[in-house]
Amino acid sequence: MATLTLAEDRITDLITGNKILFHHGIVDAFGHISVRHDADPSKYVMSRHLAPGLVTRDDLLTYDLDSVPVEETTYRLYSERFIHGEIYKARPDVQAVVHCHAPALIPFGITATPLLPVYHMSAFIGTGVPVFEIRERAGMTDMLVRTAPIGRALAEKLGDRPMVLMRGHGATMAGRSIREAVYRAIYATQNAAIQLEALRLGAVTYLSEEEGANYDRYTLEVLHRPWNIWKRELEA
Amino acid sequence: MATLTLAEDRITDLITGNKILFHHGIVDAFGHISVRHDADPSKYVMSRHLAPGLVTRDDLLTYDLDSVPVEETTYRLYSERFIHGEIYKARPDVQAVVHCHAPALIPFGITATPLLPVYHMSAFIGTGVPVFEIRERAGMTDMLVRTAPIGRALAEKLGDRPMVLMRGHGATMAGRSIREAVYRAIYATQNAAIQLEALRLGAVTYLSEEEGANYDRYTLEVLHRPWNIWKRELEA
Amino acid sequence: MATLTLAEDRITDLITGNKILFHHGIVDAFGHISVRHDADPSKYVMSRHLAPGLVTRDDLLTYDLDSVPVEETTYRLYSERFIHGEIYKARPDVQAVVHCHAPALIPFGITATPLLPVYHMSAFIGTGVPVFEIRERAGMTDMLVRTAPIGRALAEKLGDRPMVLMRGHGATMAGRSIREAVYRAIYATQNAAIQLEALRLGAVTYLSEEEGANYDRYTLEVLHRPWNIWKRELEA
Amino acid sequence: MATLTLAEDRITDLITGNKILFHHGIVDAFGHISVRHDADPSKYVMSRHLAPGLVTRDDLLTYDLDSVPVEETTYRLYSERFIHGEIYKARPDVQAVVHCHAPALIPFGITATPLLPVYHMSAFIGTGVPVFEIRERAGMTDMLVRTAPIGRALAEKLGDRPMVLMRGHGATMAGRSIREAVYRAIYATQNAAIQLEALRLGAVTYLSEEEGANYDRYTLEVLHRPWNIWKRELEA
Repeated sequence: MATLTLAEDRITDLITGNKILFHHGIVDAFGHISVRHDADPSKYVMSRHLAPGLVTRDDLLTYDLDSVPVEETTYRLYSERFIHGEIYKARPDVQAVVHCHAPALIPFGITATPLLPVYHMSAFIGTGVPVFEIRERAGMTDMLVRTAPIGRALAEKLGDRPMVLMRGHGATMAGRSIREAVYRAIYATQNAAIQLEALRLGAVTYLSEEEGANYDRYTLEVLHRPWNIWKRELEA
Repeated sequence: MATLTLAEDRITDLITGNKILFHHGIVDAFGHISVRHDADPSKYVMSRHLAPGLVTRDDLLTYDLDSVPVEETTYRLYSERFIHGEIYKARPDVQAVVHCHAPALIPFGITATPLLPVYHMSAFIGTGVPVFEIRERAGMTDMLVRTAPIGRALAEKLGDRPMVLMRGHGATMAGRSIREAVYRAIYATQNAAIQLEALRLGAVTYLSEEEGANYDRYTLEVLHRPWNIWKRELEA
Repeated sequence: MATLTLAEDRITDLITGNKILFHHGIVDAFGHISVRHDADPSKYVMSRHLAPGLVTRDDLLTYDLDSVPVEETTYRLYSERFIHGEIYKARPDVQAVVHCHAPALIPFGITATPLLPVYHMSAFIGTGVPVFEIRERAGMTDMLVRTAPIGRALAEKLGDRPMVLMRGHGATMAGRSIREAVYRAIYATQNAAIQLEALRLGAVTYLSEEEGANYDRYTLEVLHRPWNIWKRELEA
Repeated sequence: MATLTLAEDRITDLITGNKILFHHGIVDAFGHISVRHDADPSKYVMSRHLAPGLVTRDDLLTYDLDSVPVEETTYRLYSERFIHGEIYKARPDVQAVVHCHAPALIPFGITATPLLPVYHMSAFIGTGVPVFEIRERAGMTDMLVRTAPIGRALAEKLGDRPMVLMRGHGATMAGRSIREAVYRAIYATQNAAIQLEALRLGAVTYLSEEEGANYDRYTLEVLHRPWNIWKRELEA
């Protein structure tokens, strides 16, 4: 088992976040969530190669921002750990990253229809989110972010936004905390499902840029409310 | 803990109503339900700021119709309590109010397609329900009903109807009892989901005004039937 | 408690059928299932006015085919019991009747799109099913089959078919056994959900009349297979 | 009880595979999964006629490739066992076969819209999958693969592909192991559900042939990851 110097509350939230994402169908056997190290911003913590629903404390590994484990390990690693390392490098404000293949999000990565905020719960979507086309940087791949350069290209596409869709693959969300990254993953997916239905009915009125920004500023204040019920659901 | 003078059956139904709405996906971590005070119609009772699925007796607070707690409290309050107070002010017939963001209802608040009754279970929809556009009264907000004047505008838009849709936000249902408000929230959402599917198939025959009114008169007589099975579901 | 002379296997299947229909979302708090009396074909057995998920042996009442309880009772009765009595009168081959408001079926009763068999599991749909328009016989009602004449009109519309859709209301299935009526309710609903999706994709090839008839002849032979797993689901 | 000489790990995976397919809604009371015999490639093992969710070790029978049980049995057999035997005959590389009626797949068998890979998880779909039209070989049937010749026609249509859709019926998946066949059944169904949604939004970018092939080569390496969480779900 690896040495784990991460603060206890981040360990707890990271394990809980893995399970919440699984319980809500945001990740299935695949996908992952990481957190930046609280004491050393040049490190992050994430599970070894494992379904998120199975992650325990003993599965957590510490990586540097090149996504190399800081201690030698015999564990198999997530192939796409570079998503996490490269976003932490590019975005000092980001404390947590979720990568997922949530079904409702896929259509918005493979068509020209932009994901836009249908209600305040997903206000963070703002004026839309970027779509990463791996072919632009890496040609015909197996779709995975298997290297630091591809991870860097993804981080560039993300820019200063809260999330990025990935064509034929899924999405990656960034947050100022584990709770915010999980919140964004859950409500981006919910938004996608609602938007798919609304688009059937004709022209849609989305949140304006100002409405979205106004609510988004408020989100951090109320993150404990969903987090507490999501934790309770895991106990039931 | 606050003093609670509400009749015991209203306390029980309020706590049960919170849990039923959560169990049926009408509310998630957000949304709330209140009941008018049985002994003093100028007061109402609602939980402190908390996910509905977690509400217990100790979380219930009594408010006046300006949505000010009648006893001092250190509890955080729902930002949108004005929805409740202003509807109780405007509608003496209303004994309970549900506010929610049920996904199936959102499309009918952000497009021009009116919500109409596809079957007798949602007969209360009648000839359609109003849609509240917060921009009309308050310009670019964070979408929340954070003040008494916005609450009043919502109550005006509701008028004498059983529910009001809120653009980019959700919906609010009024009822002559907690059970009726919960019933309306559940079947308005079910109606929205069915209507979305039916509209794919071509022209839809909705209940006529007379058919809707005829069934709606009957609803109060049979509310115990869904309530009993919804309670049983919570025990399972 | 009423005297119950129904054969023990019909009692068991009737109670189980109520619970299976609820577990599969075919009925919610509303809807009902009945069985013809094995010893006296001029009687049928059905629950008192109660959500199907709550029905126990003590709730079962025996009715004549005019839908009058054969013993005096203080229990409240289903308003729409005439659906059952009138079908048993008109159709000596029918041993069980399900009435439901399954959401996926509603669109096919309120639009001009006919329900047609997308696969062998719902082969009994054959060349389509009739739609009952209560306005034709009874004008502007509250949509309920509250009288024997309306029940008779429904039975006439059903004719010799396995089921009838009811505009703005739901559907009624007939079967040669409780298991067949439950099977038809579950797979008609599944067919509706699949057909709604298939129609998005363009022209649909349905089962031909001959294919449908061929498989339908086989269904009775394999009804024990779904019944056994549906029973097991109730235990879990 | 029949003599069972299959390797212990294949027995365990076969029983687990039955239950995973049921838990994920790929099979309901109908559908089946088989495995080739590890010691004798001219035999395969599959349950007797039983809902997959109920299969135990004692229900497993060994068949030759003509789908005749190698020991006399009084058990009823799956009518469509010829699907399995004929595919094992035609495809020496295949070690496991799943046959199912998963709802999301049906629309792609009854319309002209081809099933195509929306993301890497279903990369095995490649440039599309064949559709078996039973009428071409057998005219108007009851839709079931009840004979060796129809089974052979299905195996021919499958060709060297990972799966074949069956018009008005379902689909059959082949795999190099039980885990791969189950994986393909689950993600083909997930792909179908996502593709149905994406097609609403306009032109869809699917995986290219090269992208699909690149990821598919990698799948075997990570099959333990979904399998472990699917097993854990069964315990919960």
